[in-house]
Amino acid sequence: MNIEQKIINSIRVVSADAIQKANSGHPGLPMGAAPMAYTLWSRHLNVNPDDVNWINRDRFVLSAGHGSMLLYSLLHLYGFKVSMEDIKNFRQLNSNTPGHPEYGMTDGVETSTGPLGQGVGMAVGLAMAEKHLAAKFNKEDAKIVDHYTYVLCGDGDLMEGISSEASSLAGTLGLSKLIMLYDSNSITIEGSTDLAFTEDVAKRYEAYGWQVLKVEDGNDILAIDNAIKEAKAEQKKPTIIIITTKIGYGSPNKVGKASAHGAPLGEDEIEKMREFLQWDYKPFEIPEEIYDETKRQLDKKLEIYNNYQTDLKAYKEKYPKDFKDFEIAISGKSDEDIFDDEYFSFEKDMASRAASGILLNRIANKLPTMFGGSADLAPSNKTFMENSDSFSNENPLGKNIHFGVREHGMAAIANGILLHGGLRSYCATFLVFSDYMKGAMRLSALMEIPQIYILTHDSIGVGEDGPTHQPIDQLAMLRSIPNMKVFRPADFTETAYAWKYAMESEKSPVSIALTRQNLEALENSGEGVMNGAYIVSEAKNELKMILIATGSEVATAINAKEKSEFKDNIRVVSMPSMELFEEQTDEYKEKILPKNIEKRISVEALSTFGWGNYTGIKGINIGMNSFGKSAPANQVFEDFKINEEGILQAIKELFKS
Amino acid sequence: MNIEQKIINSIRVVSADAIQKANSGHPGLPMGAAPMAYTLWSRHLNVNPDDVNWINRDRFVLSAGHGSMLLYSLLHLYGFKVSMEDIKNFRQLNSNTPGHPEYGMTDGVETSTGPLGQGVGMAVGLAMAEKHLAAKFNKEDAKIVDHYTYVLCGDGDLMEGISSEASSLAGTLGLSKLIMLYDSNSITIEGSTDLAFTEDVAKRYEAYGWQVLKVEDGNDILAIDNAIKEAKAEQKKPTIIIITTKIGYGSPNKVGKASAHGAPLGEDEIEKMREFLQWDYKPFEIPEEIYDETKRQLDKKLEIYNNYQTDLKAYKEKYPKDFKDFEIAISGKSDEDIFDDEYFSFEKDMASRAASGILLNRIANKLPTMFGGSADLAPSNKTFMENSDSFSNENPLGKNIHFGVREHGMAAIANGILLHGGLRSYCATFLVFSDYMKGAMRLSALMEIPQIYILTHDSIGVGEDGPTHQPIDQLAMLRSIPNMKVFRPADFTETAYAWKYAMESEKSPVSIALTRQNLEALENSGEGVMNGAYIVSEAKNELKMILIATGSEVATAINAKEKSEFKDNIRVVSMPSMELFEEQTDEYKEKILPKNIEKRISVEALSTFGWGNYTGIKGINIGMNSFGKSAPANQVFEDFKINEEGILQAIKELFKS
Repeated sequence: MNIEQKIINSIRVVSADAIQKANSGHPGLPMGAAPMAYTLWSRHLNVNPDDVNWINRDRFVLSAGHGSMLLYSLLHLYGFKVSMEDIKNFRQLNSNTPGHPEYGMTDGVETSTGPLGQGVGMAVGLAMAEKHLAAKFNKEDAKIVDHYTYVLCGDGDLMEGISSEASSLAGTLGLSKLIMLYDSNSITIEGSTDLAFTEDVAKRYEAYGWQVLKVEDGNDILAIDNAIKEAKAEQKKPTIIIITTKIGYGSPNKVGKASAHGAPLGEDEIEKMREFLQWDYKPFEIPEEIYDETKRQLDKKLEIYNNYQTDLKAYKEKYPKDFKDFEIAISGKSDEDIFDDEYFSFEKDMASRAASGILLNRIANKLPTMFGGSADLAPSNKTFMENSDSFSNENPLGKNIHFGVREHGMAAIANGILLHGGLRSYCATFLVFSDYMKGAMRLSALMEIPQIYILTHDSIGVGEDGPTHQPIDQLAMLRSIPNMKVFRPADFTETAYAWKYAMESEKSPVSIALTRQNLEALENSGEGVMNGAYIVSEAKNELKMILIATGSEVATAINAKEKSEFKDNIRVVSMPSMELFEEQTDEYKEKILPKNIEKRISVEALSTFGWGNYTGIKGINIGMNSFGKSAPANQVFEDFKINEEGILQAIKELFKS
Repeated sequence: MNIEQKIINSIRVVSADAIQKANSGHPGLPMGAAPMAYTLWSRHLNVNPDDVNWINRDRFVLSAGHGSMLLYSLLHLYGFKVSMEDIKNFRQLNSNTPGHPEYGMTDGVETSTGPLGQGVGMAVGLAMAEKHLAAKFNKEDAKIVDHYTYVLCGDGDLMEGISSEASSLAGTLGLSKLIMLYDSNSITIEGSTDLAFTEDVAKRYEAYGWQVLKVEDGNDILAIDNAIKEAKAEQKKPTIIIITTKIGYGSPNKVGKASAHGAPLGEDEIEKMREFLQWDYKPFEIPEEIYDETKRQLDKKLEIYNNYQTDLKAYKEKYPKDFKDFEIAISGKSDEDIFDDEYFSFEKDMASRAASGILLNRIANKLPTMFGGSADLAPSNKTFMENSDSFSNENPLGKNIHFGVREHGMAAIANGILLHGGLRSYCATFLVFSDYMKGAMRLSALMEIPQIYILTHDSIGVGEDGPTHQPIDQLAMLRSIPNMKVFRPADFTETAYAWKYAMESEKSPVSIALTRQNLEALENSGEGVMNGAYIVSEAKNELKMILIATGSEVATAINAKEKSEFKDNIRVVSMPSMELFEEQTDEYKEKILPKNIEKRISVEALSTFGWGNYTGIKGINIGMNSFGKSAPANQVFEDFKINEEGILQAIKELFKS
């Protein structure tokens, strides 16, 4: 057996052994896809295990994240910080080899994957970032951004709509440096793909404008190598290489069967696998010759890395200004003061979405790394950066991305852009359609990346478009995602602080909910936003009741208070962000919401779910407990009594009790 | 101008006028797509406005729901209960002509649409239901289920991943009676579709296994008619008819522009439209000759309807047993007692997903109309009905649907199946992947249809698969959807009641969250489930504290109480459904959770968001405020202190305070 075949088998065996030891995991994919992954890593993938954040490394995304042992095996063999001890701890508490690859937990893992299709979306984002940055920084004689993005996916990834969305856009944008290895093993959990997936994938990808290549035998590493070469040579289109494999290859009895997918092979079958693969080593033993070979391959990769560093030095000398911009871009920090007085100043009242549009443009004027857009709602979301054009195949310098009507794909792509480095991404749609992208939004939070979600038309204030377009449940949905910071600003000042927080966030994604309708500026809005909640109207005399409101309802709450006979005993708190408030000291929280004040009313024109945390068992939550209605916005507010009258009624009720 | 052209223009003008009057709406689609819609309705669509629930009517779904005025115009012209007065009230409070079509609000509206792509998914479900019921009830000499499903969609629908998912499955299943009219107007909100959507749609649909037909001129009703005829003649494949149109046709200045899409044309432009279309009538005036013609067309439709009734009578005489089954199926009720003693009896403890699998099979054995499946997780979700086969093109009698890895498409399809009538649908995936189908789940709730969602692997109890597969935020997400009933049963008995509720629900969708891991049977679990929350372990002496738990944590809470020094003063409440509890009388609520007991602890191994409603300002919520970890399940519970120790600690803390 030649050394390459031996390495491939080592991946298969180590994967199966680790899964057996954990008594949990998915051996089918690592065993079937080991040859394609090895071919890619050994002959093509430019990486440096000692500089895992190297901006020009090739990106490898394992979209079929359940095949995590494939990735851990490769990381181990190629010198990343995944020891054999780590592999023995596969799927164990606090190990760096969790069940699915997790970004930030393991060196060399580019993205968290597992929820199918997300990896394809993020790979499209990585390739878009590369294309944009290359257009920005490369010179005729010096290409400092010039790498490929590879994604390995399975049938499940390609059945998910999110990958359709992202792949269609990748075709439109001509992302020729995006290369997808499709592990086509014709098996899913329920059985043969014939049950549910008989489409002609090749034809579908041709329809998207991709180059389609095929490898009939997934064990034929020469054919795989040639296909990857052909893919890299293509200058106009992304490439999918459809590689026919056998799931669980190496296991004589489970090969080609659904039973190989998601459960350990079993001790007996593992013995038979060793026989079949002629593998004479003990579990977790890899012969030196294999390490020698991967080390030899790695040395070549390091040569490429070192050449890049030399080229970069030359670039620095020849193009000092660009180099400085490049460094700033990679650092993710601006050297300008974005948040000056001008940033916070507005001339007139306006909808918070309009304020957001102005703020985004102010930021973009100072920060050249902004790169984002909307799922075909830019004019409504107010997300177009006027200082730039549309990003397209013909004009990759454009900063405004047209994602199309593809919310889920958009969010995954934006995650990929942010993960790439060198850019600050954002994306936008109506708040109600955050429903469509929840899966990818959750991944932003899980990966701890500061994605920015602009979500406009944030309540029944949507008006005539009616219940399908009026968000009710969406704020609660977003607030319940760990590490997601949700803002619902009450006027332009609060919007400005929300954007400031979003731009300064390092580990948390931020969702900003914005109104369609006009908002009057509050007298006392301000920096308190950064504490999540603060007093916007204080009780003149003894404090007996607290109104807590967000967004468009803050002004309504203040106005209602002013009309109340009890106004001197009522405080109004604006709570633009529950999450930020939760991060404050107990002292601060007690100052804003003293526990002994039990008369509490929340006002928010969305689901009341979750407000009990602040209003308690005896409080009243004014909001929506049904879907909305199609009618002019003010009539809808009246109809649901989310208005001064409704608040005054609640105040009376509580003072009676 | 011939009468047909005149009718088409009447649709355009009435649409534009209604939108102008409402000062809100989308004229572009109704004006561009009027000819295709008219051709379909006049020459093909078999409906009866006086029997809108006729089971064998052709179904028409306007997936591009923003074009609602197109649909309302047609409903008006064809004798449905949409008067000209209603049209004048377009988008007004409590009218039956809301901004987007809403199921249940307007006669003849088959589905709620607006969120793009959903209509395509539901149309696939309608066609699957037809195919299944046809296989079940039709005889060589008598076809009592034999209708087409038409769906009109736009570019946005086809960009959404959900439509890709559903269309791919439709191809696999050979749904030849599904016919899609694609209004290809090359315009989206942000501008030309070239910005983001350059794929070859025809080729993509060929790849899915569809027949693809093209009509180059969207005003050519003969060509449209011929294409629909060809589509109906096709016996093996669904058909997409790609019809090139001009958005806003009839408006001389806005035709073909994004500005025609989503805003009123304006009074001036409306005048110019009248000139261009040679339309001499006042707003909302339609000449008698038009009504005469649609009445004439309607008479033909009624003839078909009457013939069907005659055929049905003949069927009843010849096949009385089948006819009775058919009647029962349409009624949606079983004539068997499903929920007998046997239904509730289990021999041993088990995971609630396992109990759910047994219950589903018990139900399916008595109720022949069950039709559902999983997004490729049937073995894990325990959702296969053993008394039947897989539903497929070759075996349309099979009741088990293989949706493929397509959660969003699955939920929309299941909605379509349920909307069809004659079947009881359900669908399944892991709880964490409800994220992917939130959009369609919300529509179940908005349409008030009793969809059943089986959501297994319902907490960090997932274990090794780790944070991407451990739900945290999903229960809060589902609970915040108005009209969604969420259950998290604590043992097999509670699971049995949850399923009972789901099967008896008429207006609410139901989500059942089920464990992967084993659960011990509770001593006192039972019918209290139907009240949402009930006492499972009472305080022996004076009540001083309440533990509220759900699902797998109920047993943990009871065990912790038993170990506590304060056990005689502690009550444990199982709260399988917050929504059902909220529906109880104040008296019942006070009985279970007396307001004067402020020492309250919630225990649920998911996000604590929302629990403050029951534990108040001073309570403690035990649960997850971060993502989970990859490790064996029991270790994860220990690590996050969601165990007896954590509960005992909280009990002590509250008794100290």
